[in-house]
Amino acid sequence: MKSLIKEKGAPYYLQIKEILEERIFNNVYPVNSLMPSETTLAEEFDVTRTTIRNALKELKNVGLIYTEKGKGTIIKSPKIEQSLLNFYSFGREFKDSSHNIGSKVISKEKIVPTLDLIEKLQVDEKTSLFKIERLRLFNNIPMILETSYIPEDVAQGIIDEDLENKSIYDLLEWKYKVKIAKAQEYIEPKIANVIEAGLLEIPKISPVFYTERITLAAGNKPVELRMSIIRGDKFKFYTELY
Amino acid sequence: MKSLIKEKGAPYYLQIKEILEERIFNNVYPVNSLMPSETTLAEEFDVTRTTIRNALKELKNVGLIYTEKGKGTIIKSPKIEQSLLNFYSFGREFKDSSHNIGSKVISKEKIVPTLDLIEKLQVDEKTSLFKIERLRLFNNIPMILETSYIPEDVAQGIIDEDLENKSIYDLLEWKYKVKIAKAQEYIEPKIANVIEAGLLEIPKISPVFYTERITLAAGNKPVELRMSIIRGDKFKFYTELY
Repeated sequence: MKSLIKEKGAPYYLQIKEILEERIFNNVYPVNSLMPSETTLAEEFDVTRTTIRNALKELKNVGLIYTEKGKGTIIKSPKIEQSLLNFYSFGREFKDSSHNIGSKVISKEKIVPTLDLIEKLQVDEKTSLFKIERLRLFNNIPMILETSYIPEDVAQGIIDEDLENKSIYDLLEWKYKVKIAKAQEYIEPKIANVIEAGLLEIPKISPVFYTERITLAAGNKPVELRMSIIRGDKFKFYTELY
Repeated sequence: MKSLIKEKGAPYYLQIKEILEERIFNNVYPVNSLMPSETTLAEEFDVTRTTIRNALKELKNVGLIYTEKGKGTIIKSPKIEQSLLNFYSFGREFKDSSHNIGSKVISKEKIVPTLDLIEKLQVDEKTSLFKIERLRLFNNIPMILETSYIPEDVAQGIIDEDLENKSIYDLLEWKYKVKIAKAQEYIEPKIANVIEAGLLEIPKISPVFYTERITLAAGNKPVELRMSIIRGDKFKFYTELY
């Protein structure tokens, strides 16, 4: 849990924004409920109402709350809006934010590729693959269950890296000198199976995204296949069409 | 049901491709099952095996089948791959194809906007909206349940058009001289409710896409809000990330 640092911290309104954001994500303020009033919040944090108002403005901008005349401030769907307009990466996007981002390694092993993997990663049957299964956490809440397949010759030794705290894309680019060019992604709706629901801590019959992403290096060489189960109650995708 | 036209029809292999495609979409050939052999198909259509082979090649290219050594030709997931890289429209995309495309109007009415609609369509509370609910059909199979909201002043009288056979975007552009600039789209996974499942003819607990699309004319004026329930067993979205 975050709390306001009055000494040499970030501007109060930004700190308070993040504290409130955390409360929304953790369901302290449930969806559709009323936010405490500006006066109540000002008292709690011992700041002016203007500071609270600025914090609320920030939350409004990221789509977490809205105001209704005569009612007050209401908690909106706490979904992370994931833009499909550029190469997104959970680990990278939130890395520099003050959110507590991490991964739990569920399994990692070296495997012989199946026919499907041979086709998708364009490797021959003699190429070993690293299979890395991670649960991605945001403020300690499980958000995405991710299975990565990386050809051994692309990143020898990546399986022994600190995969709980490091982004695979960062490792590929900075340590293994793989220049990532683009990714092709397929998105499907699905109902989480019992294992997925258990790991993601969601009710048994929950809608999730299933995505399959092939990441290509220069020359269109596939360097990773990633299958993700993404919580539907926490994420929505956004795109612009022309 | 299509059948082969031997007189002045399209090339045999293309006609056969479409007949087989229809069978896959209609579950005559279920997913993961084996396709009849080339010889069997050649006999059925009374053409050469080369013609059959060319038809199968086409089906392979659109991702409906694949070949496994020693087994034969297998039916893949019959999902329509919907690219998010450009402004897609079910009615427009398949209009010129030989597929049987149509809509069933479920309801249409003039309504007073709710607060949510006022905000999303940027209208005032005095602007009436047309609400048009359509079931989109592909070869007579229900694929998408779509609810459109259009401000009356954008397209006076659109509610009386032939909405079973015409694309709303085409009507807006050609008849009502609305220049569509872009659309903003949100995509979420969801479990179809009983009404949606009934109309879409899918089992009760089925995963579907829920999309919300705001279409903007020049000057960023919202001209339509469209909420769609898209069958998850028939569609997947595709995008490229850079």
